[in-house]
Order: sequence, then structure tokens, then C-alpha cells
Amino acid sequence: MPELRQNIITREWVIIARERAERPDQFVQKERPFTPLPRYKPGCPFCLGNEQLTSKEVYRRSGDGGWKVRVVMNKFPALLPEGDRVRRVDGIYRSMTAVGSHEVIIEHPRHDLSPALYTVDEMTEVLATYRSRYAELRKDHRVEAIIIFKNHGEGAGTSLQHPHSQIAAMPIVPTQIRTRLEESIRFFDEMGECVFCRTLKQELVERVRIVYEGEHFVAFLPYAALSPFHLWIFPRRHSSSFDEIYEWELPDLARTMIAVLGKLYHGLKNPDYNYSIRSVPAQDGHRDYSHWYVTIIPRITRTAGFEFGSGMYINTTVPEESAEFLREVKIP
Amino acid sequence: MPELRQNIITREWVIIARERAERPDQFVQKERPFTPLPRYKPGCPFCLGNEQLTSKEVYRRSGDGGWKVRVVMNKFPALLPEGDRVRRVDGIYRSMTAVGSHEVIIEHPRHDLSPALYTVDEMTEVLATYRSRYAELRKDHRVEAIIIFKNHGEGAGTSLQHPHSQIAAMPIVPTQIRTRLEESIRFFDEMGECVFCRTLKQELVERVRIVYEGEHFVAFLPYAALSPFHLWIFPRRHSSSFDEIYEWELPDLARTMIAVLGKLYHGLKNPDYNYSIRSVPAQDGHRDYSHWYVTIIPRITRTAGFEFGSGMYINTTVPEESAEFLREVKIP
Repeated sequence: MPELRQNIITREWVIIARERAERPDQFVQKERPFTPLPRYKPGCPFCLGNEQLTSKEVYRRSGDGGWKVRVVMNKFPALLPEGDRVRRVDGIYRSMTAVGSHEVIIEHPRHDLSPALYTVDEMTEVLATYRSRYAELRKDHRVEAIIIFKNHGEGAGTSLQHPHSQIAAMPIVPTQIRTRLEESIRFFDEMGECVFCRTLKQELVERVRIVYEGEHFVAFLPYAALSPFHLWIFPRRHSSSFDEIYEWELPDLARTMIAVLGKLYHGLKNPDYNYSIRSVPAQDGHRDYSHWYVTIIPRITRTAGFEFGSGMYINTTVPEESAEFLREVKIP
Repeated sequence: MPELRQNIITREWVIIARERAERPDQFVQKERPFTPLPRYKPGCPFCLGNEQLTSKEVYRRSGDGGWKVRVVMNKFPALLPEGDRVRRVDGIYRSMTAVGSHEVIIEHPRHDLSPALYTVDEMTEVLATYRSRYAELRKDHRVEAIIIFKNHGEGAGTSLQHPHSQIAAMPIVPTQIRTRLEESIRFFDEMGECVFCRTLKQELVERVRIVYEGEHFVAFLPYAALSPFHLWIFPRRHSSSFDEIYEWELPDLARTMIAVLGKLYHGLKNPDYNYSIRSVPAQDGHRDYSHWYVTIIPRITRTAGFEFGSGMYINTTVPEESAEFLREVKIP
């Protein structure tokens, strides 16, 4: 019997379609060789030695022989650093100058790596970069929300193979972020507790959806997972803004991300995925009611008309079974 | 300069990334032959003559030599007609039995047709079927929302080529539908007018986003279109529930849909797309503040981490240019 589940954090319903449930191993990507890429690709703007091919560099973490991570302006920016926030209200038409920042994080000098194969040190460098850029961009009072995200693979929206992620600093708070914030305030008003902390505590009791437990971070499938292998990584410590993460917590987040991405890579044979870091609005201080977290969405199914027509999702897998599958994947 | 635009109906922001704007004709599908399919395919459960291969038939529109349209239960239903709505609240976990209905509309006896190529009569038969099922399913008090939707092509989430669409009758009102309803109530409270009627009136003055004008229906691109060629079809007459459509309005909606789908088919070479009909909750009566409408989303770009992380969209085309492109497409 299919079942409707409600995500207590977002208040969104999802259909877990047990009747058509596919076993987790049916999502192992077929005909997907681990294509050997070159370490260096001439003409790739993100490769070590090709620095002159990128737009302006805004940040760099130095290392032997050059750099470990670089942050450059997106060549086709959706948001521009110059100018004022100008809001136009012309009858029913509302618009605003797209000021902010749209940056690319070049995660590694090498062309052929995948985050699932990073060392803890390498991933820590990437996360330290995220933190640094997040903290820096927040200082700009025109910035209301900062989205850190990664598109891995063509099915996830990227055409460049060199490992990279992006940061978008925006002059408004997106509607969805605001709506979810309001839900978390309602929960806090009612229960006197952060809904994310409450969820994590309960997941650690139930233990059926946990995929990996780090010292400071826990990876699990949401009870109302939107799609197969949809994953969350929560910090155990209550903190609402991503840049509240301590330096000494970064390696554990790195280990947790590598563990989870590694399980996807080896268990499902390198599926395309997106991840993003969700946080409170950029100009908010510490908030008792909200919690930053990482969300990972493997792109192994397609959204269709049902999702566009309702804003809901149909998930053809059972989160507890997918969690069990991932727990059992061994990383060589 | 990229621009942020807010959709006054959904209150959602979108980035219109003019800097990276692609010209509309860059979205013409490449290497996409108009593959000739057979009129009849042995083994296709939706073909005329193969009726025994489908699940239970719940509705039929008869025609010469059998039927014009059939409605059958989905073989892998996400919602089941039997049973009560049972809601479970177990600490933070909320679930509900997925009762309702999940039906497939077999739009045509022929295997090889595309809605863009239907005659007005054929499309009218499909729409009359939608209306009839919608009105019937609403009578079930367990049904809170009815989503009519179509997935055209693999990129839009279907693997079956025989033209078909689906209806999902659900025991809850999806969060997104409720949130948008609240927005439309707020607008009505403030302005004493339906926000959809207001929008249509203004679009007919501006005329820069109109694609096709029927007698009773108008097709246009939203000012804050989420993606390239995202389209809306609004009834000119204020009505909030899809089954309020009059019999004599159906052929004009059919003409409008064929015109718009035909422009996509010929102008962009048969892109994959989804459409859905959005309406007030099933148990609502006539509402002054809301309006049913059709939304069409060609699947020619991919959502990525930005969309998952923010709930917002980046649209790399300018709606006014896409509308102009579509207006100029001639249907042979």
C-alpha cells in the first residue's frame, strides 16, 4: 500500500509508492564506466596551469606548486557584484537588479577527481573555502541569502567535468527559504525546540534511516525523502548559519561527505547528483529555531508533470530500505 | 544585466539571466527526427485492440470502431481507491494512507500521434474526459486535490510513447497549492480582485508575452517564467475549479492547446514537455480569489543544485523574446 509521509521540517507531503517500490539496487547506474579522465586537460579553464582562462580570482588556498582551491567569478554570472539593489514596482510587475555574487569554486587542481575520491584533507580545503566565502559574502548588506551548491554530472546540470561547485549570493530571501523558516518558528513556538535538533535526536533513536555517523555530523535519509537516496547531513550541534561551523569541525564534515558520496559512487556506480548547503538568511544572526544542513539529491529519477502540478514528489523507494542499502556499501 | 523578477501569483522570484541569455532558437532540439511510429504496436497496452492489457477501465468515450478515449487505473498506482483516510501522528512522524485515485487517460486509439497533431475534435475529447473525471473524483469526500498532468517524452518522465496523461486524486492539499492559495487570498483582500484575472488583463494590455489568443482562453509566458518557454493558459472568464469549464468552451481550449503545443512541436522540433491543470482544492466551491489554469513546461533545460538549494529558478532566456519567437512559428 502506498503511503503519504509529511516532512515535519518543510511540512511537505511526499508519496512513498510502496506498490511500485523498486529495490534500491535497481538504481545502480548501468553502462556507466568509471571513465578515466586525464589529470590535466589542455583548454580546461579549471586545470592547474590554465588560470588565465578563468574570470577574476577572488580567493585562493595556496599549496605546493600553486593552489589547492581557487574561487573565481562565474563567466556567465546570474548575479553581479556591482550596483545597488533597485526594486521596481510597476503595477503587477515586480523586479529587482540582480546584484550579489556568483562564484565558482574550483575544488582541486586535478581534472580527473571526483569528490567521492577526495582525501579528508582535500575535502576539508573545499569546505574551508565554502566557509570563508560564506562569511565574507554575508558582510555585504545587499546579500540576503547565500546558496552553496554543486552539480555533479550532466544529469545534474553541469557540462564541465573538472570538479567545481558554485556560490550564489542573492539580494532577496527566496520564498521557499522564508516559508520553511516560518514553519521552523511555528515549531519552536509550540515545542520550545529546534525542529532539526528534534528530528536528529529522534533519528538517532530510531536508527533506521541513518547512513553514516561522524563525531559532529550525521548523514541520514529524511523520513519523507523526496526521491531515491535523497540525503541530509545535519550538524549535531545546534547552529543556524553555515559559517558558525568551527575550524575543527571541518574535517569531520569532510569525512561524512566523503563517506556518503563514496557510498553513492561505489554503491550506485557514480550517479549524477546535486548537493547544497541550506542555511538561515544571510543577514540573520544566530537563531534558536533553525539549523543549517547539507542536502544531497542523486539525479537518478526524473520529476514529471505530477511534481510540476502539485509541488509534491512521488518516491518509488522506501527510505528505510535505501538507508540499509547505503549502510552496507563498503568503500574500498 | 541579469534581473530578478517576482511572480505576483506565486510570489516566487526567478533570475532572468540576460547576461548569459541564449536566443530562443538555440533551444531547437537537435538530432531529433520526427520518428515515424507505427499506428498500432503489438504489446502496447494503450493501443486499440489491446484493451485486455490494461488495468480496470473506469471511463470511456465511445467512437466508431470502439473508443475515442479510455480511462483506466494506473498499473502501478501511487494512490488507491479503497480504504479510509487514516492519519498517523507518531511523535515527529506524520503519515497517511494514500487513498484516492491514480488514473491513466489513454488519449487516442492510435499509437503514433502527438497532442500537437490532434484535430480540435480529438483534443476536445481528451479535455471532456478530464472534465468528467475531475467532476466525478471531486464527489469523493476523501479527495482534497486533483492533479491532471501529462508527461510527453522521456525527458519529461515517461517511457510509454502511446499518447496518455494521468489524474491523481489525493487525500491532502499539497503544501505548495495551499501556500499559493493563501497568496491569492491576500491579494484579493488587498485589491478586491482575483490576481489571475488582474494578470491576464494586464498581459492583454502589454501584449509582449502573449503567444496565442483564443475566444475563451489566452496562452502567454509568465512575466517571471521559470524556464525557457514556460507557458500558461488562462480562461478569460473567472472560474476557480477546472470542472466549471462549460461544454461549449472545451473546443476553444482544445484549439489553444493545439496552437501552443504545435508551436513548440514545429518551432522547437518536438521537445519533451509536461503540462498540468492547476485548480482550487477539490472540496472548495467557487472561489472569487483563485483561478484554474494550465501550465506547460518544456523540458529543455535541467534544474540543478541552485534550484534544490533555494527553490528558485534561473531562466537563461527572456520571456518576451521567447513569446515573440513562438508567435512567429507557423503551423503547417
